[in-house]
Amino acid sequence: MKTAMRSHLCGALRTEHIGATVTVCGWVARRRQHGQSLMFVDLRDHSGQVQCVVDGSVDVRSEYVVAVTATVAARPVGTINPNLATGEIELHDCTVMVLSAALPPPFPIDERADSVDEATRLTYRYLDLRRERMQRNLRTRSAVLAALRSELVPREFVEVETPLLMPSTPEGAREFVVPSRQFPGSFYALPQSPQLFKQLLMVGGTDRYFQFARCLRDEDLRADRQYEFTQLDIEMSFVDQDDVLEVISAAVLAAARAVTGGTVVPIERITWHEAMDRFGVDKPDLRFGLELVELTGVFTGSGFQAFAGAPSVKGIRVPGGSATHNRKALDALTERAKQLGAKGLVWMRVGAGGSLESPVAKFLSAAELAGIVKATGGEDGDLLLLVADEWATVCEVLGQLRNDLGRPPAGEGGFRFAWVTDFPLFVGVDSQTGRPKPGHHPFTRPHPDDLDKLETEPLAVRSRAYDLVLNGWELGSGSIRIHEPDLQQRIFATLGISAEEADRRFGFFLTPFSYGAPPHGGFAVGIDRLVAILAGEDNIREVIAFPKTQSGLDPMTGAPTPIDARQVRELGIRVLPTA
Amino acid sequence: MKTAMRSHLCGALRTEHIGATVTVCGWVARRRQHGQSLMFVDLRDHSGQVQCVVDGSVDVRSEYVVAVTATVAARPVGTINPNLATGEIELHDCTVMVLSAALPPPFPIDERADSVDEATRLTYRYLDLRRERMQRNLRTRSAVLAALRSELVPREFVEVETPLLMPSTPEGAREFVVPSRQFPGSFYALPQSPQLFKQLLMVGGTDRYFQFARCLRDEDLRADRQYEFTQLDIEMSFVDQDDVLEVISAAVLAAARAVTGGTVVPIERITWHEAMDRFGVDKPDLRFGLELVELTGVFTGSGFQAFAGAPSVKGIRVPGGSATHNRKALDALTERAKQLGAKGLVWMRVGAGGSLESPVAKFLSAAELAGIVKATGGEDGDLLLLVADEWATVCEVLGQLRNDLGRPPAGEGGFRFAWVTDFPLFVGVDSQTGRPKPGHHPFTRPHPDDLDKLETEPLAVRSRAYDLVLNGWELGSGSIRIHEPDLQQRIFATLGISAEEADRRFGFFLTPFSYGAPPHGGFAVGIDRLVAILAGEDNIREVIAFPKTQSGLDPMTGAPTPIDARQVRELGIRVLPTA
Repeated sequence: MKTAMRSHLCGALRTEHIGATVTVCGWVARRRQHGQSLMFVDLRDHSGQVQCVVDGSVDVRSEYVVAVTATVAARPVGTINPNLATGEIELHDCTVMVLSAALPPPFPIDERADSVDEATRLTYRYLDLRRERMQRNLRTRSAVLAALRSELVPREFVEVETPLLMPSTPEGAREFVVPSRQFPGSFYALPQSPQLFKQLLMVGGTDRYFQFARCLRDEDLRADRQYEFTQLDIEMSFVDQDDVLEVISAAVLAAARAVTGGTVVPIERITWHEAMDRFGVDKPDLRFGLELVELTGVFTGSGFQAFAGAPSVKGIRVPGGSATHNRKALDALTERAKQLGAKGLVWMRVGAGGSLESPVAKFLSAAELAGIVKATGGEDGDLLLLVADEWATVCEVLGQLRNDLGRPPAGEGGFRFAWVTDFPLFVGVDSQTGRPKPGHHPFTRPHPDDLDKLETEPLAVRSRAYDLVLNGWELGSGSIRIHEPDLQQRIFATLGISAEEADRRFGFFLTPFSYGAPPHGGFAVGIDRLVAILAGEDNIREVIAFPKTQSGLDPMTGAPTPIDARQVRELGIRVLPTA
Repeated sequence: MKTAMRSHLCGALRTEHIGATVTVCGWVARRRQHGQSLMFVDLRDHSGQVQCVVDGSVDVRSEYVVAVTATVAARPVGTINPNLATGEIELHDCTVMVLSAALPPPFPIDERADSVDEATRLTYRYLDLRRERMQRNLRTRSAVLAALRSELVPREFVEVETPLLMPSTPEGAREFVVPSRQFPGSFYALPQSPQLFKQLLMVGGTDRYFQFARCLRDEDLRADRQYEFTQLDIEMSFVDQDDVLEVISAAVLAAARAVTGGTVVPIERITWHEAMDRFGVDKPDLRFGLELVELTGVFTGSGFQAFAGAPSVKGIRVPGGSATHNRKALDALTERAKQLGAKGLVWMRVGAGGSLESPVAKFLSAAELAGIVKATGGEDGDLLLLVADEWATVCEVLGQLRNDLGRPPAGEGGFRFAWVTDFPLFVGVDSQTGRPKPGHHPFTRPHPDDLDKLETEPLAVRSRAYDLVLNGWELGSGSIRIHEPDLQQRIFATLGISAEEADRRFGFFLTPFSYGAPPHGGFAVGIDRLVAILAGEDNIREVIAFPKTQSGLDPMTGAPTPIDARQVRELGIRVLPTA
C-alpha cells in the first residue's frame, strides 16, 4: 500500500513498472559487494524482496531500514531470477536513505532461523516475525478471522464482548485469578470460556451471538496448548442441531477456502458411534483410509477362544504392509497395542490367492480364514492387524494403530473436516457414587429419541453434543442446551445431584433460566488449532504472534516477574517466601 | 432469520404475509384477556412484536417463551396500530406451544425499566437485555465493530491478537495482576494497552496492524470508565501523520454512517493551539457555537488595569443570554469561573444600539466598549462573558463555561468529529527536577519543524501527537513514534533521564529498536465511548453487555469473591486478614 513514504511495496514491482520512478521501504535482507563501485542490495518488506543496484560506497548492512528511490529496470539477460516474483526487474539509479541503522541480528532473518532454538526465536520475536514464514502465518490468521466473520454477519449474528473479569467457579479446569484491590481478599477469574455469558445472552433475547473470545486456562502447556487461546464462540436461539452445524460449516469452509484459494471437500457427518466403529477415535482423520473392519461375526462359534469369546473383533488392512513390516516391526506394533490396553495383537500376512500367514492361522478354520480375507478385502502383500476385546477397547487400540500407520504430516493430504454427532450423554460411571458421569457438561440436551431411557438405561442415552474435527484434530465442540428446569432436574437426579447442591453449584444458570429461557445451542471453534492446520504448521506457537514458552515464560519481556511490594499490599495479599 | 423452529421473526410480518401460515417464537410481552374465549398475546423477539389472537384458555403469562403457529391476517378496520411495524396484521388460528414457563420478572421488560435502579437492572441483566433499547445498543455496537473493520481489511491491515498475560510495568495507570502458579511470587499484568506489542509488530515487519484490544485498568470507576474497555488499536509503518488520520477517519465515519444510515459531517482538523484558542479545550464540541473571541488587543493601553495588565483577554457571546441570566445566574457563573481558576468573570449585557451594561462599563472607554461589541458581534439581548488572565487560564475557564452553557445532551446535534493535532510535546515543568514533562509519552515524535528547539525551548516544541474528538469527548489518541535511537536519546536528555535509567525503564523498547525499527505511528479509538455517543447514550454501561457497577462488582454473578484456600496457596500467596 502506498503511503507518504513509499510508492510501492517491494514485492509488488513487475516488468510493467519498468521505467517508472518508485520509492520502496524495507529492511536490507542481503548485500553483495561487486568491487568498490557496485553493490546489490536485496530490500525486503512483508510483500517480498526487490534487488537494488546501488553505489558501492553506500553504507548499509543487514537489517538496516532504508528507503530507496529509484528507476525500475529490466534485469540484464541471464540474471533473471525465476524463483522471485520480482525476479525480472531490478532498481537502478538508487537514492538510498537510511531510516534506521541496525545491530547484526542474532540469527539470519530467513528460513535458516527454523532451526534456531525456540527460546532464542521467542527472545527476539520481533526479528523472527520479519521472516516470510511468520508473516505468512500472521496474515493467514487474519484472513481466517475475516473469512469466519464473513459468514456470521450476513446471518445476523451479533458480536458481543463478554467480561474478562469473571466470577471464579470451582468447576472445570484451573483458572487464572485476579486479586481485587477494591475488595481485598476477593478475586476475579479470567474466562476459561464465555459459556455462562453466552447462554445468558440467549436468555436475554439476543438470538444470535458471536465473539472471538480470548480465553485462559492455567494448565500445563504443550505443543497444542497455551495459557491463552482464542475461540470463535457462537450461540443461537430457537434452533436445533442442524442450524448450528450449518453456520459453523459455512464459516470454517470459508476459512479453508480463504487459505487454499480454491474449493474444499464438503464436511462429512458421522455419528460418534460410527466414528468409533470405523476409525476407532472420536476425532477421525479422514485424509487416509485404513478403516476398521468389523470381524466379530466371522468368529461366532469359532474354536479359537481368544476370538470366539470376545464381544468384538475388528481388524485393519494395511495395503502392501507385509513387505514393510518385518518381524521386529510387528513386535513393536504388538507392544504398542498392549500399551494401548489390548491383551494382544494378531497379525496376518495375506499371500497369493488369499492365503494367510499368521501365528494363529492354525487355530482358525478355512471358513474363518476366508471370512477374514473377504471382510477386509485383503490382497497379496497386505498386512492385517486384528484385536479382540470389549468393543471400546478394540476401537481405541486399532484407532491409535491406524493413526500411527497412516496419518499424513501437517500440511499434506488437504483439509478434511468432519462433524461427529450423537456423543453419549454420559461417559462411564463414577466409581464412588455409582452414578453416570456427564460426557460434555450437565446442561447438554439428551437426544430426543432417547429421553425415555434417561432413568432406566442412562449410558445408552445419546446427546445433542457434537464435535468439529479437522484432519484428526478436535477443533471444537458444542451442544444444544437444556432450557427447561424440569428436564434439567431429571439430569441432576440421574447424576445424583440434589436440588440444594445444584442450586449451590449452578445457581448462576438455574436462576436466570427460571425467568424464561429459549431453546438454544452453540459451538466454539479453537482458532489457534484451526489456523495452525490451515497454515500447515504442527505447533500452534507458530501461528501466535507472541506465545509463551512451554513453561509459561515470555523470554522477550521476562514475564512473569515479581512486582512492587506496595502493589501487592494494596491487593490484600502477601507473597509467601519460596521454600 | 428462519430456523428449524420458526419461519419468521416476530417483527418481520407485514401485510404481504396475509394468508400465510407462519411460526414465530419469542417471549410473551403482554396478554389481554377478552372474556373467557379470547385473548390477545403480544409476542416479542429482538426484531419487534406481533399480536396473536389466541383462545382464552391458553395458559401463558408474562415472559413465557412460546412458539406460535398461525395464519397471518389483516387486522380489523379500526384496530390497526400505526405505531407498530406489524400493526396492520395479527395472527389467527394460533397453535401455541409453551417452550419455557417463566417467573414474573422483577421489573417490566420495556421502557419503564429505564427508571429502575441500576443495581437491580444489572442483577437481572439477562432480563434487562430483552428490552428494545438494550438490544438496539448491543446491535449498534456490533454494527460499529463491523463498519470499522470494513475500512481496515481493504487497506491490508493485519488483525493480530496480542497477549493478555503481559509483563508488569511500573509506568502508567494501575494495572491488574495475575499471580503465576508456575513461578510462585511472580505476576503477569493484564494489558492497559497493547502499545509495546504493536510497536514490536512494526519492528517485526508487520507493516499494518489492527486489533479490537481488550484492555484493563485498575482505576476508580465513573460513568465513562470501567475496569475493562475495548479499543480499536492500529499501528502502521512507513507513514506520516496524514496516513494514520486518513485510515481512522474512514473507519469512524463508516461507523457513524452505519448508525445514521445517511451522511455524516466530514471530520474537521484543528491544531491544539487553535482548539484552545477558539474552544478553550483540547476536545472541542463542534455541535454548537459560543466560540471564544479574542479581545486582548481591544484593551492594549486601557485604563482598566484588570484588563490592560492581563496577558490575554477573551470573551464568549451568549445569544439572547441577557434575558435568560438574572443576577443570581450571573453570580453563579462568576462563582463557577472562580472555581475553574479565574480571578473573576466580567459580564456585559448588550443593549439597543450596541450599548453595554456591566459593573465594569464605567472603567472602560467608549472605544473599548465599541471594540468589545464589534469583536464579539454582540447584539441587543446578548450576554457577554469576559475573562482576563494567562492565556491558558482564560482558555480553560471560558472553555468550561462554553460547555456549561451550550453543550447539547447525548443523542442531539448530530455527530461532529474533530482531529486535534500538534499537541505540545511537553506539558509544564516538573517542580522537583525543573525538567519538562512529556505530554503524551516519551516515545512521541517531535514536530519536524520544531526539532531545533528541543534543547533551547522545549515547551515550544509541538509533537506528532493527535486526538480524535467526537461531540466534545476524546475518543482516542495516537502519535507518530520515534524510531531512531539518537533522537530518542535527545528526548531522554531533555527529560533528564540518563542512559542507564532509560535502559532500566524502557529497555523492552530500546533493545528491539536497535535492531532496525521502521518509521511508524498509530492510534487507538475507545470503542465504548464511540458506541455510546453513536447510540445516543450518556453512560457507557448502557452499551456494554455485562458491565460492572461503579464499585467494580458484578451483582449478577457476585464477582469478585473469595476463592478456595488451596487455590490461593498454589499461587504462592496468602490473603491478609482484613483490618
